[in-house]
Amino acid sequence: MEEAYITLPKGFKASGVSAGMKCEDPANINKDDPKSSYLDVALIVSDVPANVAGVYTGNLVKGHSLTRTIDIINSGKKVRGIVINSKVANAGVGKIGVEDADKIASAIADKLGCSSDEIMTASTGVIGSRLPVDKMLKAVPSLVDSLSSDEQSAHNSEYAMMTTDTVPKEVAATITMKDGREITIAGQAKGSGMIHPNLATMISVFTTDANISSELIGKALKNAVKHTFNRVSVDGDTSVCDSVIVIANGEAGGDEITDGSEDYMLFEEALTELSEDIARKIASDGEGATKFIEIEVFGAKDEYDAKLIVTSVARSPLCKTAFFGEDANIGRVLTAVGYSGASFDPEKIDILVGGILFFHDGVCVDFDEDEASRMLSNHDIHVEIKLSEGDAYDRMFTCDFSYDYVKINGSYRT
Amino acid sequence: MEEAYITLPKGFKASGVSAGMKCEDPANINKDDPKSSYLDVALIVSDVPANVAGVYTGNLVKGHSLTRTIDIINSGKKVRGIVINSKVANAGVGKIGVEDADKIASAIADKLGCSSDEIMTASTGVIGSRLPVDKMLKAVPSLVDSLSSDEQSAHNSEYAMMTTDTVPKEVAATITMKDGREITIAGQAKGSGMIHPNLATMISVFTTDANISSELIGKALKNAVKHTFNRVSVDGDTSVCDSVIVIANGEAGGDEITDGSEDYMLFEEALTELSEDIARKIASDGEGATKFIEIEVFGAKDEYDAKLIVTSVARSPLCKTAFFGEDANIGRVLTAVGYSGASFDPEKIDILVGGILFFHDGVCVDFDEDEASRMLSNHDIHVEIKLSEGDAYDRMFTCDFSYDYVKINGSYRT
Repeated sequence: MEEAYITLPKGFKASGVSAGMKCEDPANINKDDPKSSYLDVALIVSDVPANVAGVYTGNLVKGHSLTRTIDIINSGKKVRGIVINSKVANAGVGKIGVEDADKIASAIADKLGCSSDEIMTASTGVIGSRLPVDKMLKAVPSLVDSLSSDEQSAHNSEYAMMTTDTVPKEVAATITMKDGREITIAGQAKGSGMIHPNLATMISVFTTDANISSELIGKALKNAVKHTFNRVSVDGDTSVCDSVIVIANGEAGGDEITDGSEDYMLFEEALTELSEDIARKIASDGEGATKFIEIEVFGAKDEYDAKLIVTSVARSPLCKTAFFGEDANIGRVLTAVGYSGASFDPEKIDILVGGILFFHDGVCVDFDEDEASRMLSNHDIHVEIKLSEGDAYDRMFTCDFSYDYVKINGSYRT
Repeated sequence: MEEAYITLPKGFKASGVSAGMKCEDPANINKDDPKSSYLDVALIVSDVPANVAGVYTGNLVKGHSLTRTIDIINSGKKVRGIVINSKVANAGVGKIGVEDADKIASAIADKLGCSSDEIMTASTGVIGSRLPVDKMLKAVPSLVDSLSSDEQSAHNSEYAMMTTDTVPKEVAATITMKDGREITIAGQAKGSGMIHPNLATMISVFTTDANISSELIGKALKNAVKHTFNRVSVDGDTSVCDSVIVIANGEAGGDEITDGSEDYMLFEEALTELSEDIARKIASDGEGATKFIEIEVFGAKDEYDAKLIVTSVARSPLCKTAFFGEDANIGRVLTAVGYSGASFDPEKIDILVGGILFFHDGVCVDFDEDEASRMLSNHDIHVEIKLSEGDAYDRMFTCDFSYDYVKINGSYRT
């Protein structure tokens, strides 16, 4: 598929408008720039009531728009869509935060002719500020009126979700069911900083025209995120608003996908691949990132240790700044593995970066500095850690730590 | 005490010289600058064989100079001193690393007229490079010949330990024993980056003229580091060379300090205070740091949760960049507490920074932006997190994350 956007599956519409949160003065808006960051409210709706499942942040503190959405999904009822705003996270403001989100959802539901608990809510941005409800209510008419299945409207809904993202993150795949019928899954995400398992993206929404129950979507999603969204780290921080939502409206027709069937396997596989694709895009677009870094561990004692090791290296500011500086200071990777908490024999560890062996049996190997410099100047850096403890494997996607990360996050709120 | 330096306790001498590791060409050395970073080998010796105890990095990968020292201390024999070099960590080079350290120690022991296993070794710097043994052996005569108890020699031994440190970290205290006799404890440390429990400094050495057994020094040291060295975080990375060594030569005379005695309590107290003093100096001098940040939690469920919370906030790059940017984005502190793994009621959390209440019962409070700006412009930032789960308390010292952290660590090796 050439172009990927959220309204590719049948029976979905999207829109993105400005409620004046990102840009106070409309005169400053460059309407000719489709990626202009002035868009700040997104709406994605299904033409018909749809099944839904989600996975959410592991943070004990949760945003109010998100807790409202969790309640809706847990109720087991069908939904029509989701409204997402950037700039204000609607978190840490107390119970009024749920009421604020409810007001926006109700206004949209009124215009769509559905009930307010069919419209989910998601917010991302600064914590501790209330949603500008009046501004957002004023934007609702144009938000609903501009709903469309065309490509530009879909992209607009993505732009409206973005905060410090520098590129949109949109994916799609079409798979052929056993009966020859085609179904489509599309996804979009915002996520750049404050990213670490669990969960690994601030907000991601998938739409699909597959005929699948909420329960089975939930199962597929849980498996899909395990080594994708839950294996991205930008800075080790976990947002209070992280969520991945999948909405399935069945508009592709056909029999309902059943558990354990070949069709189900195809669906889960496609959802996993799209999730991995988004996870890679998020790590590549980490705040201030100049490098995409994939860390793999082989031969760890067990899954627990394998995860400890890739997480430890992915979180290490010393490893991340060394990669930014293109400095072959691979001893820092050894150090991060050493303090990960995993048990291993330090005299039986090999570390390769970009295919070059730097440590063999725990001892630094003579390497060609020029070759290492060339390798470290690449955008994609592949770190392989090989142990002799067992056969557990894990991997993680991350990025380097640059001046710009500090710059972006030193003045995010103001 | 006005001036603090390592040779204040009776019967200790120190020196610091250049072996050409930091600065290849002696012509580039500014000998008039006492803090000039050209010094790279330090020696601290006791006139008589002394008792010793140490605590070491929790990293599974340990530097070879350090493993050699651990063997010496574990043997229970008395020691004469310690040689410390900066620039090369002597880690990740295999068994030859122990032999290299041994050669340096033997040469020093020969000149001092003691056995090589009376000279401990410590190294800090780049991992994966061998010690330049020939260069270091050439420096041994001047290292031993310049041993002195004078203040400048003591400072030189501190300068020679420093890597990215910008200020020396030297402390001392004199306490009066029950019999009226005065004993002195002095300490010095290097440590700036790659710092996180356990342990919190790369290398710290204490000398004392107290008459105390190795076993009791060990007990006092273990207690002293708990909420001091083990409560400093600069970047969440734990070095393979971290160690704190206490050498006691008994030259103050008097009866041996006994366990549980008033004198022992005074000794432990003084060692703890000096350790806290160094811990604060290390956090203040964190690589690229522009702020010293103290994080306290009150009312946590238990000690385990209390530590999770202060560690989570201290490690958060988002909190650390916000403090660098003097941005009142205190929602990030709430977020870091939320994902710490500690259990607490998010609707019963208060967060104060610099005495200003930002969150009350989990809800963002209206605060005066001007007052917040003034407070955040201070060098010392005090974060208080108040929960209602129990009565556990903990604290951690850290610093902010600046452009300079990235700069220093993007090109440390080269």
